[in-house]
Parts: sequence; C-alpha cells; structure tokens
Amino acid sequence: MECVLKDLEVYGLESAQLEKVCVLLRERILEVVSHNGGHLSSSLGAIEIIVGMHNVFDKDKHPFIFDTSHQAYAHKLLTGRFEAFSTLRQIGGISGFVRPSESPYDYFIAGHSSTAISVGVGVAKAYALKGIDHVPVVMVGDGSLSAGLAYEALDELGDRKYPLVIVLNDNEMSIAKPIGAISNALSHLMARPLYQSLREKIKNILKSMPEGVNYLANRFEESFKLITPGILFEELGISYLGPVDGHNLEAITQAFQIAKDTKGPLLIHAQTTKGKGYQIAEGKYEKWHGVGPFDLKTGQSLKSAPKPLSPTQVYSDTLFELASQDDKIVGVTAAMPGGTGLGKLIDSYPQRFWDVAIAEQHAVTSMAALAKEGFKPFVSIYSTFLQRAFDQIVHDVGIMSLPVKFAIDRAGIVGEDGETHQGLLDTAYLRPIPNMVLLAPRDNATLKQAIYFANQYNQGPCAFRYPRGSFLLPDGAFEAKPYTLGKCEWLQEGGKILLVGYGNGVGRAYATLKLLEAEGLEVGLLDLCFLKPLDSDLQNILPRYSKIYVFSDSYLMGGVGSALLEFLGGGVYLKSFEVGDLYVLHGNSVAVECTLKIDPTTLAQEILKDNS
Amino acid sequence: MECVLKDLEVYGLESAQLEKVCVLLRERILEVVSHNGGHLSSSLGAIEIIVGMHNVFDKDKHPFIFDTSHQAYAHKLLTGRFEAFSTLRQIGGISGFVRPSESPYDYFIAGHSSTAISVGVGVAKAYALKGIDHVPVVMVGDGSLSAGLAYEALDELGDRKYPLVIVLNDNEMSIAKPIGAISNALSHLMARPLYQSLREKIKNILKSMPEGVNYLANRFEESFKLITPGILFEELGISYLGPVDGHNLEAITQAFQIAKDTKGPLLIHAQTTKGKGYQIAEGKYEKWHGVGPFDLKTGQSLKSAPKPLSPTQVYSDTLFELASQDDKIVGVTAAMPGGTGLGKLIDSYPQRFWDVAIAEQHAVTSMAALAKEGFKPFVSIYSTFLQRAFDQIVHDVGIMSLPVKFAIDRAGIVGEDGETHQGLLDTAYLRPIPNMVLLAPRDNATLKQAIYFANQYNQGPCAFRYPRGSFLLPDGAFEAKPYTLGKCEWLQEGGKILLVGYGNGVGRAYATLKLLEAEGLEVGLLDLCFLKPLDSDLQNILPRYSKIYVFSDSYLMGGVGSALLEFLGGGVYLKSFEVGDLYVLHGNSVAVECTLKIDPTTLAQEILKDNS
Repeated sequence: MECVLKDLEVYGLESAQLEKVCVLLRERILEVVSHNGGHLSSSLGAIEIIVGMHNVFDKDKHPFIFDTSHQAYAHKLLTGRFEAFSTLRQIGGISGFVRPSESPYDYFIAGHSSTAISVGVGVAKAYALKGIDHVPVVMVGDGSLSAGLAYEALDELGDRKYPLVIVLNDNEMSIAKPIGAISNALSHLMARPLYQSLREKIKNILKSMPEGVNYLANRFEESFKLITPGILFEELGISYLGPVDGHNLEAITQAFQIAKDTKGPLLIHAQTTKGKGYQIAEGKYEKWHGVGPFDLKTGQSLKSAPKPLSPTQVYSDTLFELASQDDKIVGVTAAMPGGTGLGKLIDSYPQRFWDVAIAEQHAVTSMAALAKEGFKPFVSIYSTFLQRAFDQIVHDVGIMSLPVKFAIDRAGIVGEDGETHQGLLDTAYLRPIPNMVLLAPRDNATLKQAIYFANQYNQGPCAFRYPRGSFLLPDGAFEAKPYTLGKCEWLQEGGKILLVGYGNGVGRAYATLKLLEAEGLEVGLLDLCFLKPLDSDLQNILPRYSKIYVFSDSYLMGGVGSALLEFLGGGVYLKSFEVGDLYVLHGNSVAVECTLKIDPTTLAQEILKDNS
Repeated sequence: MECVLKDLEVYGLESAQLEKVCVLLRERILEVVSHNGGHLSSSLGAIEIIVGMHNVFDKDKHPFIFDTSHQAYAHKLLTGRFEAFSTLRQIGGISGFVRPSESPYDYFIAGHSSTAISVGVGVAKAYALKGIDHVPVVMVGDGSLSAGLAYEALDELGDRKYPLVIVLNDNEMSIAKPIGAISNALSHLMARPLYQSLREKIKNILKSMPEGVNYLANRFEESFKLITPGILFEELGISYLGPVDGHNLEAITQAFQIAKDTKGPLLIHAQTTKGKGYQIAEGKYEKWHGVGPFDLKTGQSLKSAPKPLSPTQVYSDTLFELASQDDKIVGVTAAMPGGTGLGKLIDSYPQRFWDVAIAEQHAVTSMAALAKEGFKPFVSIYSTFLQRAFDQIVHDVGIMSLPVKFAIDRAGIVGEDGETHQGLLDTAYLRPIPNMVLLAPRDNATLKQAIYFANQYNQGPCAFRYPRGSFLLPDGAFEAKPYTLGKCEWLQEGGKILLVGYGNGVGRAYATLKLLEAEGLEVGLLDLCFLKPLDSDLQNILPRYSKIYVFSDSYLMGGVGSALLEFLGGGVYLKSFEVGDLYVLHGNSVAVECTLKIDPTTLAQEILKDNS
C-alpha cells in the first residue's frame, strides 16, 4: 500500500477511496511519531480536512497555506514524503513544520502561529494582479485566532473581499485549553446572552400574536440558527459556512466544493477532535500536543534514561514557592501553561496567574499595568515567541521602567523544532532597550537565584533566559550564590587566557576548559551573570588577558561578545563562539551544535591552535 | 477665566458650566497648537468626551487610560497644565502625549496605538486583586481598533468580564481615511448584506401572517435596530452602548453615568467630528492630524523659511518614478499614507499600493507573500512602528529570505514627538536577523540610489533608513554613486584619525570634520553605506588608523560602533558617538542633539581632547 500511496493522486479521487487514505495516513503518523516524537494530536485531528483539501483542490494550482503547521503531517505524506517521513525532526530529515525548502508544496514557512490568513491575503493580492483565478486555501486552528496578526488580516480581507478559502480547524483548543472571547464565540454561540435575549424578544413578540404562533416561532428559530454561528465573521465581511464535522469526509469535501466556486472570502468552520483515531490521545488537551517517543499500545512514554530536572520545572517550583508566600506575585503565559511551567500556578492561584491564549502582545502590556499597580508580574514566554511582543516591551514596559520580570524559556538552541523556534535572538533585541536588566543563570541552582533576584528587583524590567531541556553545566560544578545587580562571578582565575560564559554558555565554556586543561593550558573562567548592566570591573579584568573567548547560546551579531567589545571600546583580543548569521535547522541539540562548530571539542581545538 | 479653570473641578459640575469649559479648552488648544504645532484635529474632536469623563468620574479614583494619546490635550488642560500647555512639544515642556512622569493623572504612556484596552485589562485585574471597585476608563480612537493588540485585549476582556469602561471615539478615521472591516462594521452596520437579509427574512415571515403585520414588523425593526450596531462587541462578550453624539455633553455624560454602574466590560460608541469647532479643520482627514504652526484665521501654515526637500518626498517621488515603469513594484503603509509618502502611489496605483490601517504585523506578512509571488514590495513604516512587526520580519520574511524592501522613515532622532517615537532601535533589532541587508543613505541623492539598490536587490530582505525632516549633510557635499552590495565609500582619505559615518551620521561626521580641520587636524571620512553586510575591506582599512570615531543616529548598544568592533574582534581604538542608553525626550531635534552631547561642536571638542 505504501507504493500505492506514493503514486496516488488524491485530487479528484472517489470518496470510498479517501477513507482508506485516511486510515493509511493515520497509521503512518502514529508509527513515526511514536518512534521520533512530534506533534501528534493536532496532526491526527486534521487528517480528514487535509485529505478533503487535496481531494477538491489541485495542489499544483492552489497554494495550501498552513498556520502553525505542526498539524500538516498528512499534507507532507500526500506530497511525496511518505517514506522520508521516517526522518521526521531528525537532523537533515523532514521538518516538523511545513518548510518551503523541503517541498514546493510547502508554500510558506509556518512555525509561529496566526500568520496564514495574512499570507493568504498577500497571495490573493498577487493573484489579482497576475489575473490568476485559483483561490488560495488557508488552514488555521481555532487557537490561532486569538492572536492579533490573524485579526489584522481578517480586517483587511473582510474589507477588500479577496477570494480566499479559510478552513478553521476548530478542536476547541490551541495547545492548552480554549481561552478568550473568540473561542467562546465559536463554541457556545447559541447559549450567549445576547442571542438568548434577541431570540426571546422576538419569540415573545410572535407569541403575542393570536394565530400561527408555533409555525412562526419555529421558522424564526430555524432561520436564526442558520446565520448566527458565523456572525462574528459575517460582521467582519467574511462569508461563513458551517459548522461541519471535520472528520466526515463527505461533509468536508462538499464544503470545499462550495468554497471553490465562491468569489469572495469564505470561512469553513470544521469541528474536529484532537488526537482523532488514537483513543489514548483523543480529546486530550496539552498532554498529547507535542510528545517524545512512546509505546503505541499503552501510550507510555519511552524514556531511555531518567531525565535531569528541567529548567522549566525549576522555574515552576521556585515561582510556586515564592508566590505561595507573596500575593503580589502574578504571572502570565500565552497558551503555554505546560511548556512554561505556569500551569501549576494557574491551577493553584487562578486569580493571579493567567493564560491569555496566543496573544504575546497583550500578555506583556497587561502585565505592565499590573506592575504599575504594584504587583510583580512574571511573563513566561519562550524566547522565539517573545519577539512578537518586542514593541510592547520597548514602549509599554521600558519607557516607564516598570518592574516586569521576563522568564525566557527555550533560549538558545531548541533542537527538534528547528529554525522557526530557535531562541537565539533575545539577547540582541533586548539589550538595546533602555532600563532593561538582563541576566542568565548557568545551571538549575543559579536559575533559582535568578528568580529570587528578579522577584526582589523593582527598579525596572528584568529578563532572565534559560535553555530547553537541561543546562549544559553539570549540577554542583560550582556553588550558587545570590546575584548582585551587574556583578560577574569568577569561577576560576589564572592564566592569560580567559573564557567568559553567559548563561548556558558557561557550561560549554566549562567543558572546553576541561579539554584545554587536559592539554596543559592554564585558563580562567568567568561567569558574566549580567549582560546588562555589565560589571564595571570588566574594564580592568578583561584587558589583563591576552586572549578572551566568549561562550553564549545567542547570535554572534549583537550578542555577548559584541556587547563586551562595545563596553571596552575595542583594545582587546576577543573571539566570540556564539551562533553565526544563519537560521539554525532542526535536529538533536548536540548534533546541531556540532554542525554549528560550537561543540566543546571543536572549540578547544580552535583555542589550542590560536595559542600554539 | 484662566485662573477660574485652573481651580475648577469639572467633576460633578452642572452641565450648563460644562459647555463653557469646552469653549475655553478649544480656544486654548487652538491658541497653543497654532503657535507650537501639534496634533490638532483629534484633540479638538475629543474635547466633549474628555470633559464628560472628568465630569462623571473622579480623576483621583478612576484611572483614565488614553490610547495613542495625542487626542488627550483637553485632559492635560483639566489636570493642572492649563498654563504650562504653552510649552507643548518644546524641550523641557509639556509632551504631546500623556506622560506619567509629567502628571500623576497621566496614568500610562501612550505614543504607539492600540495599547489602552490591554492596559485597562491589566488595571482591572489589579483592582480585582486589591478589592478596589473604581472602574478604569479607557479612551480609544476607532483607528486604533485595527491593530492586533487591541483585539487580543478585547478577546480576554470579553471572556473574563472585568469591569472596564471603553469609550470609542469614532471619528471614522485613524490618521488617514478609515480602512478595514471593523471600520466598515462601525459605520455602515445597517446597510450590511447580512443584516439586510436577516431583516428581510424575518420581515417576510411576519408579512406572511394574515393579521397584525404592521405592528409586528415595526416592533421587530425596532428591537433589531436596538441591538445590531454593537453586535461585533456583544459577540466578543462586551456590552455595547451607542452610538451617542460625542459632541453632545448631555448624551455623553448620561452614557458615562450608565457605564459607571455597570459591572462588566462596557463599550460606549461615541461619534465625533475630527477638528470639531475649528471650521477650517473640521472633518478633514490626514491634513489636520499633525500640524506645524499656522495662522488661526486662515489656516495657512506659518513657514518661516522654505523647507528643503524632505527624504519622505524623495522616497515618494523616486518610488513613483520606478513604479510607473515596473508593475512588479507594490507597496504598503500602515495608516500613514501622507507621513510615509505613499499616498501618491496609492492614489495612482490603487491595485498595487495599499493602506492596511494600523496593522504593521499584517503589512509585513502580507507583503512577504507578494514577494514570494515575484513582486517587489516596499514596506513603508516609521522606524518606531516597524518594531511592532519584528517577529514578522524574522519569521515570515527572514527565514525564506524574501526580497521585501523596508523603507524606514523617521529613523534617528524625531524631535517633537519624543520618547515614544524615536527611531533609534532599528539598526540594533534588524542587524542580527539572518539574510537581512541594511544600508543607510547620507543625503537625498544617495536616498534615491538606496531605493534603486533595494529595487534591484532580489536575494533577500533589505532595509534602508532615513531621517525625519531633512538630512544633516548639505545637498551636493559629495557626489552620489550607485550602491554596490556591502561596499563602503571613501569621502576623504588621509590622516591617522578616521570618522566613520552611517546614514544621517555622515552629515554629523562631516560637520565635525570641518571643525577639526579648522583646528588643523587631518582627518579621514568614510561612509559605511552598508551596516550589513559590512565591507570586507574594513578588516584592512580600520586597523590602519590610530583612532576611529563612529557617527550614527542609532543607539550605541547594539549599534554601528559595536558592529564594527564585533567584525574586527577588537584590536582597534574605537569610540562611537551614537545615542546612549536612555529614552530620548521631545523637543527640537537640534536642541535634543545638544542635550545628548552629540552635536558637532561637542564631538569635535571631545576628539580634539582625545588627540591632544
């Protein structure tokens, strides 16, 4: 059957065959994800929609634009990657997201959420100019609709009426539980007070009539139901079709057929179940969103070795400990309660900790207001997603120097999620913001200290970054001391060669140092601790060394090395082993480090050569 | 009467007095703005709403949160700044926006649009925790509703139902003409096909009844009208009140009275006329938004001297010239057709140039799609607003290396608009983005060359920056040559001291050079031209000089100087005269430069001292 599918053109295939295709796709996704890990439940839930899309629209004519494309595995399998899918998320293998350099059928990059409608509007504009009449097809999850970018695009689309098919894959969640008014509007429309009152009002009028009451009331109820579910979209000028059962191939293909002939923008509201077809995962919220390898029969995670305590867990536990003693501590996550470790706090203190859905801008600005009111807000957002709130950090937090604390998880190289998710930019984009304090712990114990520091620092905003999974530095290598604003820490003095580490870079520097010492080199090791403000002692310390090497999980451009040179005004020999000027691809983090040539072995060799 | 107003407490004042207050406020605003320049028409249009707000809500209890606060002049006049208002937008004087460090009644900073609802949600959360029952009052313009941040905040507000009063000042425009579906929804609600069809449908049902037809039809029409204008907000879970005449004090104060007693979120839809009360400006769109000094009687601009051709005009003319020959050129502005010079192109080529309303994120992402389709999109956004699309530049443009051209107007020190509008960050946040090319012209003639370069460069994204008003470098000081990717240009060789200029910094370096030469110093002058990629020749050029001084209108942190040091790995003596680590306040640009100590006289003295 594999070879059948490879050659199989789903476009125009009769519906009896489509069911078989879905079974095959579901099996293949389960087989590979249970082995490699990946985004399971949203991929399973989207199979019928994607098959329907490929059945009705010719993929060589209509661009398929996926939003937050971890749901697009079925699309990959239908576009020549059925066999190659076994390399999912491995280095050099198939990306976990659509990726234009991987296939011409991956129309547009999509790792961050809520971009697809905007892309669709752009394509529609291009098609209007070129005179192409193939409608672009956009697929978005309901969770993506909370973000401002999606709304900005709908606002223009509804005004200008470009032909665009949007299929809304509504599984009543983003990654975590559904949150926000738009989510309510989608799921509880008929129960909303406004409609209730409108319906009651008109029904009462009808009832006051002496004759024909039932007939009229029923007709009214019917016509009202017909139009209300999509009134939000209709109100924005976008035609609405639905809701349709997103696992019913006939319903889905029918809806796409109607959409194909529509001239303006049309939204198909398809309701699906996350994890569909794999009973253990069905309807589960965050748990089965992104998974590691697991046993297909039992659903049990296949962990080869016990994992060390993750920085996320340390953050979660420490903040919980502090928040239970101090009711001024509040916090926010943007649809990542599990990923950021905030879930436990939201469950325990629902009045003080919020999931605001995928809405990074609002997360930051609303917490700025809480800081102004004397609270201590912890903003828990991954490095790569925090950049969506850059302006809010500059304008709403920075100018008033409000003590918002940014807990930046997934800073540095993130591994399997790849180029759209790397956390390499935050040092560069946060450092030039006036009033900002930046620090980075080197291990779990100093992360705890960083949280303590941030908690008591009340002069302005403060951001601390920590990696995905685990720190490079072994626990207990050095004792953790409380941080002092703008003070670096000597971990080892001596020699004429100095290794300067920042955050997770300290671990890489330490491993490199061990290799250098084995070769008989005497080397100093300094933990920068604070990137901003820099320790004024560095003006004396650094020029004493003949060679300085900088280690940090950040981009070289605008990174830690350049901050030090800028601070000194040149005058030293400094090499920075940060990440070069490229988008870093997916794969196991250690393997990725090797391809970037920032693994300790390579770096030690480079330093030895430099000093021979 | 002035002294009366100073002591006057508008709160609780009887309505007959309020009219007089409005007259006085209007006179004062006209008097000062006609003299100093400022944001006229939105300030005039908002007077009655603000007076009503102060009349119903005690300013010592309820925080007033303004969005894009150039409309808040009346609020300033009512909170102890009637006299001081004469210093509007002057250095050390009253800011053109609300500014918390200026008055305790300026609750939150607001220079960028669409932040206020999010701030309001944050305050409401804080009040819930503190047990305070004073509802925060938010004032937004209809133009602000197009931005994603506003929507993200509404999404949470409608779900969680915090008590919050939002007064929507609907003057049917943002800065330019109204654009977008939400704008349509506000202004043409009853004409929309959906409602038409719903109304017709139910009316037809009613008509099919043998008796009581008219009575029923009329009742229905009435109840339907009652609820429809705000259906979009109601649908998001926010109660709607309106529309009310925003210049009718009685209507406005009544609405606020109702709002005061409401427990959940309530939006008051107030319709106003921009420029109200100054006939020459009334109802005019962009023209009277931000103005220079003018004659109150005639409305004529008071220009003391003919202004030099602005970079904005050069951009507009050059792009027009190119676009008229090449229909692959497209472009976008986010509600700034006049400010960015794109208006002429939108008028001439409405199929290829778009105003997408205040929606910077969507502007960038949709243009990325056009680039993917083979077009040449010019994104025309001010430096300070482009930071709102940072993630879109990184993720939607950068990864696929799409040839989007960013025309960054208002880069550097912007003068009177002050700290929220400075264009000092763009070099720092754009440089670390892989695939990005950055250049900066030094004068009008090289700006033209920069546009030519951007137009033909198709390997990836490219951004060029230019200042507000005029370049520092006199026209014709140096001949303009076509740019070559990553090549710097010698303007003057010689000496052991080198001045390196970037963009408008070349003009400052040139003026400094003249002063140094007058003191007998021999100095070289290099135009960096490209900040990314840097010229590989710099590796040889720079170390030849004993001292290097860098000039650029950008933040020192992550700026041009640090880029050069990073490129060289240290090893040179380099001082960068960029802007220090602070938010730069408002005032005349030349005066602001002096306070920052980056005026040529100060810099020449510093260099002389450094070399004596």
